[in-house]
Amino acid sequence: MAKIAVALLHYPILNRKGETSATAITSIDVHDFARSCAFYDVAPVYLVHPAAGMHALIDDMTDYYLNGAGGDKNRARKSVLQAIKCVHSLQDIFDEDDYQLWYTSATPPEGECVDPAKLLKMEGKHLIVFGTGSGLDVKNMPKQNGWLSPIEGVGKVRHLSVRGALAIYLDRMWR
Amino acid sequence: MAKIAVALLHYPILNRKGETSATAITSIDVHDFARSCAFYDVAPVYLVHPAAGMHALIDDMTDYYLNGAGGDKNRARKSVLQAIKCVHSLQDIFDEDDYQLWYTSATPPEGECVDPAKLLKMEGKHLIVFGTGSGLDVKNMPKQNGWLSPIEGVGKVRHLSVRGALAIYLDRMWR
Repeated sequence: MAKIAVALLHYPILNRKGETSATAITSIDVHDFARSCAFYDVAPVYLVHPAAGMHALIDDMTDYYLNGAGGDKNRARKSVLQAIKCVHSLQDIFDEDDYQLWYTSATPPEGECVDPAKLLKMEGKHLIVFGTGSGLDVKNMPKQNGWLSPIEGVGKVRHLSVRGALAIYLDRMWR
Repeated sequence: MAKIAVALLHYPILNRKGETSATAITSIDVHDFARSCAFYDVAPVYLVHPAAGMHALIDDMTDYYLNGAGGDKNRARKSVLQAIKCVHSLQDIFDEDDYQLWYTSATPPEGECVDPAKLLKMEGKHLIVFGTGSGLDVKNMPKQNGWLSPIEGVGKVRHLSVRGALAIYLDRMWR
C-alpha cells in the first residue's frame, strides 16, 4: 500500500492577477492539516515557504504544543503536530525522500486525472501538493506525475477552503 | 430531493470534563462553514450562540463582506456569507422553519446511524447539527430524528476539526 505525505505550498503560488507570488502560512492551516492527516494516517505534513522568519513563527507555535505547556493541556494537538515539517521548497522534500508527485486544483489542466482512491492502492511514496492563494504556479514547479481528480461542487462557488479540500481528498482516498 | 441546512452549535456543548458549557464562535468556522455549504448548495448556515455580544461580533464581521469594502475585494466571500444566520438556540431555528433534526458526533450513541448520502434522497427539510468544544450536550437538546454515521479515521486521533468534518459529510452526502 502507498505511503502518503502532504505538502501545503506557499510559494510559488498564483495571486489573483495570475502572477507568481507567496502567501503567509496561517496557523489554522497548520492545525487542521496536522489533525486531518493524523486522522487518516498521512505524514509528514510539509509546510513549504521560502522565508526563514515564517519557519521561526511556525516553530514557535508548534514548540508550545510539542515541548511546552500547550501540549500538557492538549495532548491530541501535541500528538498531531509532530508530523509538521517546515521546508523552503519542494526540492527540499525531494532531497530528503523520494516521492511520486501529485498536484491538486479545483480546475486542473485538461487531461486524465487520478482518483485519490487509486493513489492509495499504488506502491511507493506519494506526495500530494495543495496550493494556497489562487493556486499552484505550476510553470515554476517540478514536473508532476499527475493531477488528482478535482472536487466538483453543486453550488454557486467553485472553490473550497484548502482545509476543506484536504479533508475531502483524504476521505475519498480511504473510501 | 431533501433541502439541507446546517447548524454549528456553541451551546449547550460539553467541555473536556463533560460539563454543560458554551464555546466562542471563531471567525474561521464562519468562513469555512459558509464556503463549504455554498459549494454543496446547503443553506442556511445557522450559528447557534445564546450571547447577544457574540452575534454582534459576527454581524460586524459579515457586514464588512456583505455591505462593506471586503465584499468589493472578495466577491466570493460576499456571496457565501449570505447564508449565515445567527440564532440564540436550536428552538429559534424551529420557530422559523420546520426541520428534521440530525446530530453528528465522532462517537454517536449506540444504535442505527444514517448514511449522509441517504439523507439527501429523503423528502422535506433537514437540519444537520455540528458541535464545538467536546461535542453536543444532547441531554439538554431537543429529541433528534437520528444520528449521521460517524467519520471513522485510520490514524492515531479520533477527532477531525469541525471544519474538516463538515466538508467530509457534505461530500459524502453528494456521492
